[in-house]
Amino acid sequence: MRYRKIPDETVRRLPIYLRGLLFSSKQGWRNVSSQSLADFLSVNPAQIRKDFSYFGDFGTRGIGYDVKTLTREIKKILRLNVIHKAALVGVGNLGSALLAYPGFAVYGLDIAAAFDNDPKKIGRKIKGITVESVSNLGVLKKRNINIGIITVPQDAAQETADTLVKAGVKGILNFSPCYITVPKKVKVITIDIAMDLARLPYYMPAG
Amino acid sequence: MRYRKIPDETVRRLPIYLRGLLFSSKQGWRNVSSQSLADFLSVNPAQIRKDFSYFGDFGTRGIGYDVKTLTREIKKILRLNVIHKAALVGVGNLGSALLAYPGFAVYGLDIAAAFDNDPKKIGRKIKGITVESVSNLGVLKKRNINIGIITVPQDAAQETADTLVKAGVKGILNFSPCYITVPKKVKVITIDIAMDLARLPYYMPAG
Repeated sequence: MRYRKIPDETVRRLPIYLRGLLFSSKQGWRNVSSQSLADFLSVNPAQIRKDFSYFGDFGTRGIGYDVKTLTREIKKILRLNVIHKAALVGVGNLGSALLAYPGFAVYGLDIAAAFDNDPKKIGRKIKGITVESVSNLGVLKKRNINIGIITVPQDAAQETADTLVKAGVKGILNFSPCYITVPKKVKVITIDIAMDLARLPYYMPAG
Repeated sequence: MRYRKIPDETVRRLPIYLRGLLFSSKQGWRNVSSQSLADFLSVNPAQIRKDFSYFGDFGTRGIGYDVKTLTREIKKILRLNVIHKAALVGVGNLGSALLAYPGFAVYGLDIAAAFDNDPKKIGRKIKGITVESVSNLGVLKKRNINIGIITVPQDAAQETADTLVKAGVKGILNFSPCYITVPKKVKVITIDIAMDLARLPYYMPAG
């Protein structure tokens, strides 16, 4: 089931809330108030309550939200309650860093394969994953991999996206600092790792 | 001058808008409508208009927003109109990727120094920057560096933050998948590079 009425802006915030809930759970908290979630995540408590109201209200006045229920509900909405397999293309510094990053599993994401076109990298093993030749990308469907992660240099990004689409992926996470075009049936999210840094000076004390 | 009344949620979106404006400018567009910005960035056009209203309205009905004026205004609000110098600590895969990332300069950020505690890395040159020993971190103030970027392993993150604070930084961008605590006068933004991936399954066609 898909909750079609949730605005994109709320969907954008759900992973942020999920992060706060996972942290709360790690601290052993069973309940959390919108105020403490707000403090932790630097968002507005009224915004949190409004966002949560789109998919039903799980809060109790004076007690707050049940951490477990709300975590499960957000995961269900984001369809993170099933494991999605992803293939990473481009095993440079960023690609290697992502392969080693422990944070994907939390969101139900399993980077199951890695590809490169450099013969020196093909066959190398990184965090249990053997780097394969990009000419093997056709096998993704057979392996139930439906997400592609692009960490190739900028000038190879579009070509990589085209190959991933041909291989049947339904979603692409693009870390190359450029925009790529894909057919409408495929969803692309382009990540700008520099963007969050742009908020920092605003909050820094002057002088 | 600081625009104190802008909500955090709007501040969170300003870099996203800035990215859309920089893209528009690259395409040679002099004006852009809230609708086309919205389409490009997958946000709500009404939200964009509301956000822009916090710092004055630069749009003209039927013509849209002036790309140059709006870019300049957002940069001013985010205080990106002056160049901020940053020091990166932890020259592993992620640190090396960030040093090579071309996207920081766009936001007025200059990664001016890199530090590591591995003798094999100290002295090595990456993208024009010579890796220094972390024992040199005390020199940041003298070099006008007031932002720290943490890309060390998780268990060294807090210690690195403490050292950066002692060295006088005013803002920290933390890429380690853990929370760090700092004095109130220092602003920390913790980046979870996996988080954006969590939005992808929601938008992917089923099956």
